[in-house]
Amino acid sequence: MNEPLAAPSLPPYFAVIFTSIRTAVDPAGYEAMAARMLDLAARQPGYLGVESVRGDDGLGITVSYWRDLDSIEQWRHNAEHLTAQQLGRAKWYRQYQLRICRVERDHALDCACSE
Amino acid sequence: MNEPLAAPSLPPYFAVIFTSIRTAVDPAGYEAMAARMLDLAARQPGYLGVESVRGDDGLGITVSYWRDLDSIEQWRHNAEHLTAQQLGRAKWYRQYQLRICRVERDHALDCACSE
Repeated sequence: MNEPLAAPSLPPYFAVIFTSIRTAVDPAGYEAMAARMLDLAARQPGYLGVESVRGDDGLGITVSYWRDLDSIEQWRHNAEHLTAQQLGRAKWYRQYQLRICRVERDHALDCACSE
Repeated sequence: MNEPLAAPSLPPYFAVIFTSIRTAVDPAGYEAMAARMLDLAARQPGYLGVESVRGDDGLGITVSYWRDLDSIEQWRHNAEHLTAQQLGRAKWYRQYQLRICRVERDHALDCACSE
C-alpha cells in the first residue's frame, strides 16, 4: 500500500495532474484498471510517487510525480497504459484535463500527532 | 458554483497542488473555512481556476491555477488566508504537501456525451 501523500526528492521534478469526471459506465472495470495502472506506474523508471482521490460526485484528481519529462513520455507510451487511455476515452471518462508541470518548490507539514 | 474542472488559459501558467490529510478535529469549522477560501481565492488577481476533491478517507487534493508566481505569492500573504493557514496547521491538517508548479503543457477531453 502506498503512503497517501507522496514525498519525492527535492525540486525540480515533474508532476502530471490528471483531473477527471467519470461516466457511470462499467465501474468495476474502471476500478480494476485504475488499480492496475497505479501499480504499473510505480514500476516505471523515473517514478517518484502518486496521490489520488475520487469524490462521491465522480470528480477525481490523480497527481503522479516523475524525475523528468522523459520518464513521463515513456510512461505515456507504455503499451498497457495506451490501452487503458483508449478505454478511458471510449467509456470511462466524461471529461478530463491532463497537465504536465515542473514542480519548482515544495513544502510539507507533518504534525506527528498521535490522533 | 464553479465548474468542477478548471479550464485556464494556454500554458505556461502556474499550479499550486495542495494535498492534505485531515485530522478529525472541528469538521464544521473546517468546511466553512474551506468554502470561504475557495470563494476568496476566486476573487484574487491572477486566479485562473480550481479543482478540489476530498475522499472518504480524509485525503484531499486541491489544485489552484494562477497566471504567474507573483499572484500565488500575493494570495499566500492575504491576511484572511494567513489566518486560515494558521488554523490549518494548528488543528485541521494532520499532514500536507504544498507544491508550486509551472504548467508546461495541457490537454483536455470533453466527450460531449449526453449521459
